[in-house]
Amino acid sequence: MSSRPAAVRPAPQPMFALRKSLLGIRELEPEEILEILDAAESFKEVQSRMIKKVPALRGQTVANLFFENSTRTRSSFELAEKRLSADVLNFSVSTSSVAKGETLRDTAQNIEAMNVDMIVMRHASSGACHFLDRHVKGRVINAGDGSHEHPTQALLDASTLREKLGRLEGLRIVILGDITHSRVARSNIFLLTKVGAKVTVCGPPTMLPPEVEKLGVRTSTDVRAALKNADAVNVLRIQFERQEEPLIPSIREYAKYFGITQDKLQDLSPGMMILHPGPMNRGTEIEHSVAEAHSETILRQVSNGVAVRMAVLYLLSGGEVQN
Amino acid sequence: MSSRPAAVRPAPQPMFALRKSLLGIRELEPEEILEILDAAESFKEVQSRMIKKVPALRGQTVANLFFENSTRTRSSFELAEKRLSADVLNFSVSTSSVAKGETLRDTAQNIEAMNVDMIVMRHASSGACHFLDRHVKGRVINAGDGSHEHPTQALLDASTLREKLGRLEGLRIVILGDITHSRVARSNIFLLTKVGAKVTVCGPPTMLPPEVEKLGVRTSTDVRAALKNADAVNVLRIQFERQEEPLIPSIREYAKYFGITQDKLQDLSPGMMILHPGPMNRGTEIEHSVAEAHSETILRQVSNGVAVRMAVLYLLSGGEVQN
Amino acid sequence: MSSRPAAVRPAPQPMFALRKSLLGIRELEPEEILEILDAAESFKEVQSRMIKKVPALRGQTVANLFFENSTRTRSSFELAEKRLSADVLNFSVSTSSVAKGETLRDTAQNIEAMNVDMIVMRHASSGACHFLDRHVKGRVINAGDGSHEHPTQALLDASTLREKLGRLEGLRIVILGDITHSRVARSNIFLLTKVGAKVTVCGPPTMLPPEVEKLGVRTSTDVRAALKNADAVNVLRIQFERQEEPLIPSIREYAKYFGITQDKLQDLSPGMMILHPGPMNRGTEIEHSVAEAHSETILRQVSNGVAVRMAVLYLLSGGEVQN
Repeated sequence: MSSRPAAVRPAPQPMFALRKSLLGIRELEPEEILEILDAAESFKEVQSRMIKKVPALRGQTVANLFFENSTRTRSSFELAEKRLSADVLNFSVSTSSVAKGETLRDTAQNIEAMNVDMIVMRHASSGACHFLDRHVKGRVINAGDGSHEHPTQALLDASTLREKLGRLEGLRIVILGDITHSRVARSNIFLLTKVGAKVTVCGPPTMLPPEVEKLGVRTSTDVRAALKNADAVNVLRIQFERQEEPLIPSIREYAKYFGITQDKLQDLSPGMMILHPGPMNRGTEIEHSVAEAHSETILRQVSNGVAVRMAVLYLLSGGEVQN
Repeated sequence: MSSRPAAVRPAPQPMFALRKSLLGIRELEPEEILEILDAAESFKEVQSRMIKKVPALRGQTVANLFFENSTRTRSSFELAEKRLSADVLNFSVSTSSVAKGETLRDTAQNIEAMNVDMIVMRHASSGACHFLDRHVKGRVINAGDGSHEHPTQALLDASTLREKLGRLEGLRIVILGDITHSRVARSNIFLLTKVGAKVTVCGPPTMLPPEVEKLGVRTSTDVRAALKNADAVNVLRIQFERQEEPLIPSIREYAKYFGITQDKLQDLSPGMMILHPGPMNRGTEIEHSVAEAHSETILRQVSNGVAVRMAVLYLLSGGEVQN
Repeated sequence: MSSRPAAVRPAPQPMFALRKSLLGIRELEPEEILEILDAAESFKEVQSRMIKKVPALRGQTVANLFFENSTRTRSSFELAEKRLSADVLNFSVSTSSVAKGETLRDTAQNIEAMNVDMIVMRHASSGACHFLDRHVKGRVINAGDGSHEHPTQALLDASTLREKLGRLEGLRIVILGDITHSRVARSNIFLLTKVGAKVTVCGPPTMLPPEVEKLGVRTSTDVRAALKNADAVNVLRIQFERQEEPLIPSIREYAKYFGITQDKLQDLSPGMMILHPGPMNRGTEIEHSVAEAHSETILRQVSNGVAVRMAVLYLLSGGEVQN
């Protein structure tokens, strides 16, 4: 993948719109990524209007099937769907038939049988979305599956980078944190290397997956060195709940060596962008004052999240593939 | 009831649309059942469109008041309501004022005071919907009350049978499982006997209610004998959670003697329909391979569920009775 | 405040519509209160129509951010929003990022970043809405904050009083119950004194805040005396869950001395209105037979709640202040 030439020219014709589903960034062509980012620009404009609504998905049904709680991602998709005028159905694991022992396949096929056009799914198991996609005729959008991928997060990160820095090709991006367990890191690595950015992943040795260099990235365990000359750093949330055994001695130690602090930033270019997928653990992976100073960018990611999701839903809904 | 002649001709004029509420199948005339099934055919067509939406209930409000969790039934009603363009309000017991000690009547009257046009209710107590209906001026649709009735399930089962077999009159239908505790069984018995089908209820002796023959059905404790010459079998879900004391020695034994297996089906007509209200306990009341072979029918029940519920909501909303 | 002349004439020009937010009644001018009540009259008419919907907020997004469960208030706001054609996003504390340690400010700014136009918030802490309002550019509507204010409840109470009694100025109103812990009492006191009504607060001495007379009200610990010559009594719900240590010896004793019973009412004018914010504890603060006899008024409060909330949302959305 890292050896593929990064073609960052406009696609000659829409290609993503011909896909059935968005399961991960890994399987996308660079042109498809840019197609989504370009479509997202139109939806950013829609969201700046008084009437933030277009009739693109009127009469279509989108089901949000969340097996893990996630107010942010679910709300962002829900708003994207409603602003496209879709009918929205929300499922959460606690109230679903899954609690009665139903299989994922039965649940999904039942949802589809209700003539649902698209399923947005978040699931704790890596690969759950691919499984779902094989068993339903409708479209599937991965809203995060285990430690595998979170494609719309990588798309919104890229949309924010391109918006502020004018391009993606050639950018030097650091991804900082628990790379091994992060679907955000994986989707970002796939996306950024495809569009020709230079990626360094940085974290404690226990948080860097073996052979990650094969994905076309550099590795570092020294934050200060990694940040030197970087255009942006994507600071991952430390998710203690996802680690089966502790990978770091203590939060305090992580904050000291890997947290983004004013101290670590002081010799760097003030124009360096700081991204965070949220919600932030202020004082752990990011110092409070840094979070404040960069809040405009971090909140812009949230805004762009809705636009990117509108773009994905819109492009998939309008494709030639018939359900 | 079983002595009433089964008039399966088109009703001369709509009658169901003049009712206030749908509380059970027991009180419906055969013509009303057919009126709902005929209306459902139009809504099946609506659901096959790209834009699955009609403005029939625009500006009307439907409240889904679910005192028992049920993702499937609640979602089916919610989609039916949204595809009729109604405004939808979801209540679940866990967050409702019922937790603060409010009575069902106070809850219902409060909902109605917010100018809600229809209340769809599921409740653990048999007769709760009749109670509700007496205390609100608006329309009430029973989405399952205790072990009493689940009328829209029986209507969707009938819609699926008629769609595949071309008629209801004269069909030989087996209902298999815990007849005593099943509202699905009761509503199916009422519906099928009214429209002139021949019903056999089958299950372990502990699961057959005393004097059930008075409802106009035959009983059997021998699955193989019951299925011989049947046009369809409706396989009930074994709901261990509803049984106060165990009615069967073990799940394994139930599966062996009463589960629908390839083995039990092998001498029967391959055209025999197998219905299941879902969610399925594969390996208990239905063998995995049987569920697979008959999945088209079982998923068609789910599709028809939305259409039947649209029909019920539409007919009740358009009636001459004013709220 | 109590010394301000109660100007109950129509406002020369809309003023409330120029505000950013509705945080409490305390900061409103009497003209603004009447402006909301007058707008609510139009929305009462909308709700009596078959199509209870106007396009006023089409394409705008309202987020309901409830950190305390409240089916009634949340449903009332949700219906108001949907009947104004807004897109609605519901958050509840149990599923929100707050559970992941996020601050209220981060949560709110994230919601706002999704281009949400208005946030309706209920929170257990007094002043939480003022905090929120300082940190978001969008509009904030207080749906109850701790024991501070619940402005839309006071507005719906006033709307119901004015509707039945023809005016607010000069009315003699008793507020009965735990005045110290009640945001409903506080908002009612502010509203009623501003528009020129005469307020008496009544309850056990442990439930009357010290120096409450400074708010311009009389106090009483004798229900019978307080009710004599009153035009209406607003019976507060006894909320045992809000009291850190018991303020009354027993429910039975409260019911005996402070509960509204037929016995206490028998010498009074039969035209005296009884209001209750609901849900009622029948047998505690209000006798069952009294609740029955006055149910029309109490349910009318619920109906007017939706109209008043439509008015507040509509006026704030249409103002000149741009987000």
